[in-house]
Amino acid sequence: MTGEPGEVVLLPGVPREMRGLIEHEVRPRLLARAVGEVTLNASRTVRTTGVSESGLADQLEGIEHELAPLSLAYLPDLGGVDLRMTAWNLPRPEAERLLQAGVERLRGRLGEVCYGEGEVDLAEPVLATLRERGWRLAVAESCTGGLLGGRLTAIPGASEVFVGGVIAYSNAVKQALLAVPEAVLERHGAVSEETARAMAEGAAARFEAEAAIAVTGIAGPGGGSDEKPVGTVFVAARAGSVTRVAGRVVPGGRSEIRTRSVQAGLNLLRLMIRQ
Amino acid sequence: MTGEPGEVVLLPGVPREMRGLIEHEVRPRLLARAVGEVTLNASRTVRTTGVSESGLADQLEGIEHELAPLSLAYLPDLGGVDLRMTAWNLPRPEAERLLQAGVERLRGRLGEVCYGEGEVDLAEPVLATLRERGWRLAVAESCTGGLLGGRLTAIPGASEVFVGGVIAYSNAVKQALLAVPEAVLERHGAVSEETARAMAEGAAARFEAEAAIAVTGIAGPGGGSDEKPVGTVFVAARAGSVTRVAGRVVPGGRSEIRTRSVQAGLNLLRLMIRQ
Repeated sequence: MTGEPGEVVLLPGVPREMRGLIEHEVRPRLLARAVGEVTLNASRTVRTTGVSESGLADQLEGIEHELAPLSLAYLPDLGGVDLRMTAWNLPRPEAERLLQAGVERLRGRLGEVCYGEGEVDLAEPVLATLRERGWRLAVAESCTGGLLGGRLTAIPGASEVFVGGVIAYSNAVKQALLAVPEAVLERHGAVSEETARAMAEGAAARFEAEAAIAVTGIAGPGGGSDEKPVGTVFVAARAGSVTRVAGRVVPGGRSEIRTRSVQAGLNLLRLMIRQ
Repeated sequence: MTGEPGEVVLLPGVPREMRGLIEHEVRPRLLARAVGEVTLNASRTVRTTGVSESGLADQLEGIEHELAPLSLAYLPDLGGVDLRMTAWNLPRPEAERLLQAGVERLRGRLGEVCYGEGEVDLAEPVLATLRERGWRLAVAESCTGGLLGGRLTAIPGASEVFVGGVIAYSNAVKQALLAVPEAVLERHGAVSEETARAMAEGAAARFEAEAAIAVTGIAGPGGGSDEKPVGTVFVAARAGSVTRVAGRVVPGGRSEIRTRSVQAGLNLLRLMIRQ
């Protein structure tokens, strides 16, 4: 590894060992190589959610020409679609200038479907906005069974905002801990707009929180019907005195449905509180 | 792909497309090739938790000779250590016979640290044993923030056993929803054997469940002290009228600590209810 082009670096698979070698051996050598006029290929990523890849393509029609010589890649995943711009073999300052302008152009076109850049998790802007407001957050989870709380508390410092939640897997728990009226469960079912709304409002009240997210759905493989097939999910979010509910049929297997439901709940609250 | 040795199969990276091609194109061809006297290399995996790789090596001293010609690989991960035995280029019936005997030999030596085979999740034997007993399960989560509930409800049919839980991220929630006495929190702290015990007992009572798991700990990066460094975790499990608590300092970053805590909580209950 003396700076010749076209070298190959072989690293061990044990993550901790690899990280140490990357940091202490590989990165310094790469940086030393980049001192001249040529940069490594550089990328920046803008993250979107709540819109399909084809919906994004419509929204961004013609942007490839505006972004050139940057290339643009659509990277769909369960949480949404990432947009990665890459500058190829340009001097470092020019690459950075082009990427910064590209990010601003993309974000301008994307509007509210963009929630951040790089590796940011959708939970981060939600927690950050709530923290600015001095609000607390609670959750009520049925089909996601705790994944939403787990996602929020993956962010260091979540405890400044997130107070807790109820995993209400059975109807009895929905009634006893979230004050979902028995009549709502009987008339509309546990997977319904009305139950999702009552769960969010019950969580906000129970935890004395200004904001709440609730999720109820049919994650499968069992439990589906003609009227409510597997993948039927209702998410509700409460912000201050306003509650909104969104329902849809989510594609995929049990794990995908649950992951997408968490993302949908976070996004609903994000859209309600974004400044 | 006509059955010549040494072929390379290239598959697309989109998981759904890859799965379809594996199932409908690749697997039939591989099976057709294996019709003769030679099998593909065949493996079976036995899963362990609650014991270190070196502890396992001590427990299994000399077993490589007993298992030969099978090879044995130790595969450590956050949840424990998998032991993978492989039969190399043996006729299929002999490979299967050797692997079956190897599994039995390994399980006999391992005893209770082995919780299953193949891809089984630790939550599965826990839920299965509770289902056999007709017991219900509740959780109380602090530092794991819902991950334990999320892990349990990843298993289809969990709702037959799992009724719900409380994500008690703040002390106020631990008191209000889990009846953890204020005196316990003040005297011993939120991360303590006593609080973990009270959380498990509070969850069992609140959800009218015969079994409960509670987790409280310091996942970091903040919140550690000399007495209770980052990684200090207490898990408690209740089975019938018995509550047990286990405490330790878990290595790793926030995500690793939380994952290991979930595993420790599940394992504590598994050991209490195993038949």
